Amino acid sequence: MNPASQLPNFGRIGVIGAGALGALYGARLARIGADVHLLARSDYEEARQQGYHIRSWQGDFRVHPPVYRTAADMGPCDLILIGMKATENRSLPALLAPTCHPQTLVLTMQNGLGNEEAIAAALATNFQITPEAAAGRVLGAVAFLCSTRVAPAVIHHTDHGRLRLAELSGPARPRTHQLAELFQRADFPCQVSDSLPLIRWEKLVWNVPFSGLGVAANANAEKVMRTPELRSAAATLMREVIAAANANGAPIHPSFEQAMFDATEPIGPYRSSMQIDFEEGRSIEREAILGEPLRRARAAGVPTPALELLHSIVLARTLK
Amino acid sequence: MNPASQLPNFGRIGVIGAGALGALYGARLARIGADVHLLARSDYEEARQQGYHIRSWQGDFRVHPPVYRTAADMGPCDLILIGMKATENRSLPALLAPTCHPQTLVLTMQNGLGNEEAIAAALATNFQITPEAAAGRVLGAVAFLCSTRVAPAVIHHTDHGRLRLAELSGPARPRTHQLAELFQRADFPCQVSDSLPLIRWEKLVWNVPFSGLGVAANANAEKVMRTPELRSAAATLMREVIAAANANGAPIHPSFEQAMFDATEPIGPYRSSMQIDFEEGRSIEREAILGEPLRRARAAGVPTPALELLHSIVLARTLK
Repeated sequence: MNPASQLPNFGRIGVIGAGALGALYGARLARIGADVHLLARSDYEEARQQGYHIRSWQGDFRVHPPVYRTAADMGPCDLILIGMKATENRSLPALLAPTCHPQTLVLTMQNGLGNEEAIAAALATNFQITPEAAAGRVLGAVAFLCSTRVAPAVIHHTDHGRLRLAELSGPARPRTHQLAELFQRADFPCQVSDSLPLIRWEKLVWNVPFSGLGVAANANAEKVMRTPELRSAAATLMREVIAAANANGAPIHPSFEQAMFDATEPIGPYRSSMQIDFEEGRSIEREAILGEPLRRARAAGVPTPALELLHSIVLARTLK
Repeated sequence: MNPASQLPNFGRIGVIGAGALGALYGARLARIGADVHLLARSDYEEARQQGYHIRSWQGDFRVHPPVYRTAADMGPCDLILIGMKATENRSLPALLAPTCHPQTLVLTMQNGLGNEEAIAAALATNFQITPEAAAGRVLGAVAFLCSTRVAPAVIHHTDHGRLRLAELSGPARPRTHQLAELFQRADFPCQVSDSLPLIRWEKLVWNVPFSGLGVAANANAEKVMRTPELRSAAATLMREVIAAANANGAPIHPSFEQAMFDATEPIGPYRSSMQIDFEEGRSIEREAILGEPLRRARAAGVPTPALELLHSIVLARTLK
């Protein structure tokens, strides 16, 4: 990275869902000079008056980018970053209509499966374009991040921040690499992939057991690792997800299971965001992380009895 | 049944675990004139002073059989009925040592798998006899019963009461039929089976999903039946249990799954005893109902990924 080189120019960048994830990435891009605008909603007053306060393991800072109360106020952008929870995806058409123009790119940084497709569907409807044309404007990023919104417009970024980036419509393009360069300039390692299914499913190999058991068994990562019965069940879930991935265009080697356990060993009593959301009474990304993988496994004819049971238990525990 | 015919004589009958199940069967046998003695423990004072008060859908009554505080006080019996929870099985050797003589028969009415074997092991140790000889003195009954201990020595028997009875050591014998006749005289339908594995595993086809999901998903029978995801997961669990049963000497036809759903349809928001125990903070029969079937499936090489996951979640939810 050469600090003197020109910053990749993606024009006017809008952040929808400026919480623990969206505000962090948006603020760091704003700090290096990108033209970032944030849809702040409940944090609007604090963000407008004091800007965003980022307390990060990579250094604390404040920035004061333009903020808006509504998508209409924010208006058209050239690149949209989606940071809101997947549970709010029904709002996508209304949020994207005033914030996109016919060439806008949309990058979703949400968890799980189905978000890129939901965005493409919203674009296709809003702009009366073909599904293929809409897909060509959507990218997905998998974020490896520990970050919490501790107060309005105050984000505590405790660890990591790495991204993996891919196009919904196929292999990486020049713009994919330029976007990765933009994030890298903001000090986030960002790897480009030629396969969105691969980066999404690889993340699910971890997320299905650890997020799912976090809710169904009240178990943080350490409890799963140290309880032989939970660890064995987590391994079974991983194998089912790997089989489903392989049948869905994401070739993942069986050894990825052991790699995930090895990566989890040092992280201690970590709680997934789904477990934290559940324990604090907020809505959880159940369908993006458990339900949609289950449906895609079924559609591909891959038996996933443990995933089916896990999804049903998490569903039951979140029914009113 | 001919009321004038002689009651089958099993001699001195001792009930160990005189709660919602043991006290009900014991009291009804005492009422028809059997020589029943109950180990009452925490209900001792009330049972000694006022006898047992049975409020039953088949008619209320009181009986005043002899009760004891300890197994040593109760002394040797010719037939022991075991009604305590399987979670207390570690006490079996101490409870059976003073209450059995070398010819005593022991009938366990407990839930799940492994109880008969635990009793036979206790008898083999206590009497220094071969495993085969010990097994020859043990019978098992599967109870279909809705009964609650509502106060000390007060039992509310709200529905059912049917028994299925079999020998641990093999097909039914004349004594098995005589014992069934004894229960029938006490107005409990009692069917003799030639296969203990069959009656135990058939009950598990229902108990594994409905007791397990009762704890893991906080779901009563009606919620399982009416939530498509839970019902589908329950069907998967039933198929795993049926496969494990078939590999463990209990030939159960696949159509038994549908029969269990049909039987569950009319029972409404029924909570299994495991769900009730869990919700009221008592110990649950997790290993008898989930753990032991899982181990026997594994030993037979039958994959049971959903059962494995269910057991691990129930285990995690009951860890301190």
